[in-house]
Amino acid sequence: MESQQLMRAVVFDQELRFNDHYPVPDPPSGWARIRIHQSGICQTDLELTRGYMGFRGVLGHEFVGTVDACEDASLRGKRVVGEINVACGSCEWCARDLGRHCPNRRTLGIDRLDGCMADYCLLPIVNLLEVPAEISDDRAVLTEPLAAACEILEQLEISAGGKIVVLGDGRLGILCAWVLSSVNPNVTLIGHHPEKLAKAAWRTLRTARQPQEIDAPVDIVVDATGSGRGLSDAMQLCKPRGTIVLKSTIASQGSLNLAPIVINEITLLGSRCGQFKDALDIMQRFPDLPLERLISSRYPAEQAEAAFDEALHHKPLKVIIEFGE
Amino acid sequence: MESQQLMRAVVFDQELRFNDHYPVPDPPSGWARIRIHQSGICQTDLELTRGYMGFRGVLGHEFVGTVDACEDASLRGKRVVGEINVACGSCEWCARDLGRHCPNRRTLGIDRLDGCMADYCLLPIVNLLEVPAEISDDRAVLTEPLAAACEILEQLEISAGGKIVVLGDGRLGILCAWVLSSVNPNVTLIGHHPEKLAKAAWRTLRTARQPQEIDAPVDIVVDATGSGRGLSDAMQLCKPRGTIVLKSTIASQGSLNLAPIVINEITLLGSRCGQFKDALDIMQRFPDLPLERLISSRYPAEQAEAAFDEALHHKPLKVIIEFGE
Repeated sequence: MESQQLMRAVVFDQELRFNDHYPVPDPPSGWARIRIHQSGICQTDLELTRGYMGFRGVLGHEFVGTVDACEDASLRGKRVVGEINVACGSCEWCARDLGRHCPNRRTLGIDRLDGCMADYCLLPIVNLLEVPAEISDDRAVLTEPLAAACEILEQLEISAGGKIVVLGDGRLGILCAWVLSSVNPNVTLIGHHPEKLAKAAWRTLRTARQPQEIDAPVDIVVDATGSGRGLSDAMQLCKPRGTIVLKSTIASQGSLNLAPIVINEITLLGSRCGQFKDALDIMQRFPDLPLERLISSRYPAEQAEAAFDEALHHKPLKVIIEFGE
Repeated sequence: MESQQLMRAVVFDQELRFNDHYPVPDPPSGWARIRIHQSGICQTDLELTRGYMGFRGVLGHEFVGTVDACEDASLRGKRVVGEINVACGSCEWCARDLGRHCPNRRTLGIDRLDGCMADYCLLPIVNLLEVPAEISDDRAVLTEPLAAACEILEQLEISAGGKIVVLGDGRLGILCAWVLSSVNPNVTLIGHHPEKLAKAAWRTLRTARQPQEIDAPVDIVVDATGSGRGLSDAMQLCKPRGTIVLKSTIASQGSLNLAPIVINEITLLGSRCGQFKDALDIMQRFPDLPLERLISSRYPAEQAEAAFDEALHHKPLKVIIEFGE
């Protein structure tokens, strides 16, 4: 394949456009080119199209694909997913294996690096993880958001004892509830959408429509609502000296009373990206984890603009853009 | 002394009044009556006079005094300070020696219990700690706010390594900076008041006027500013995976962007009251800790209304009301 070849890509440059003559990139040394099978639309993608990060280029950071070009011949043809942060490799964060906090990092489809909503994308070889054969593409494409949920288990020691509440029945809330239910039998997911709560049913996970239905206080509350109201509810539900895991990037415009954090000596723990190996591991250990239920619709690449339109206006669980096998 | 006897007291009942014919209380079984030497005005007292907690009764929770009446004769005549939360003694928090989180607690001069701005107050015997002879009344009266600063050392393992910033040069900020400087040589206190920063000088503690003067990011930031702006500054200063200790009971009315908590996976740790024994311990270990500098003015009991007026309008470090020796 020559570098002059062209491909399909979902490009944001002041506006979102499907582009079928975007140049196919060539991998520099140490990098691989991945042929994309499918890519998921994330809330961050929607925010990028509103100007977040000032990003311009190919969108997308959730994918599963096959290594197409790479100096390491053993990788070619392997089905992979890939960590989205491209770290500098030489700072204190990278030395601590925390490249996702590297201050010099670029991020796939988010910050100064073309993303994966295209026939091909590039990532460093060290970012890639081979997908085990028993994990389908429809599951593997959810590795990135599942890893974000798994991050909670890396940050907090979660035991089988104690009560946990997850606020928010969007995809991240459901994924967090599932991951926590894999280690604790007393998790309740609270959300306003009966159809989403129904999809969340798995093992011991309980659901509720309102925080008032919970036998408070509880030990751990995860806020994945994306709203300041979620944090207020979390403070009401959390016991003194308990923990609130904050997954929502909240910019409160109204009033937000943080006094309960101080009065009850609550630990508020910010939680972002996780490690892909943890997500692949949980998929292997729990083949019954109903990840595929989160995929609410699929669009061929050529209809990417319609896919974004649905994601933006109908708040579906997960919209997938398909590029090929 | 008969129960019909009267005493001086600073009483809040819709308005603040000095009252010289308030009944002297009698201690029930298990309680002691303390003759108050002096009592400090705290920010919480000012908020109570604006309606906080719906409190009515004798104000005050910071004191040093002498046990005057008590069924345990060995306590009588002892100079004491006292923990302010009167816990139920039978809940899970009390069983864990965390009576200050007991959901049934009453609180001296704050919640359903007459306080210590009077000639006499009552507290359970278990709340009392004898003040060692080498600790003066002027130091002992600061035990409660010093304990609140010491609480940080109970909640967080603070090593001599790493950089710490304390935001806010009020009395709590200064006390936090001192307590942290007792275990870490790299603490900087940031505040807007040169005269308060000058009083804070102790051992290795550095001071600065603006967050911009700090070589960020730092490992731990303590927000004792009492404003939402303080938390925003703290998020800017704190390194990824660092800790912000929140000492300010913030009710943000404007916009407050908590996204940096999530993006940088910061731990926000609410911190409130501490244990009096820790405060007495640090006073004994550091006789050079210049606690007395925090006392900015003194009023005899009869001028309590003027004392509150100064505390409310002039933001002094610590106003003391004197009841006697």
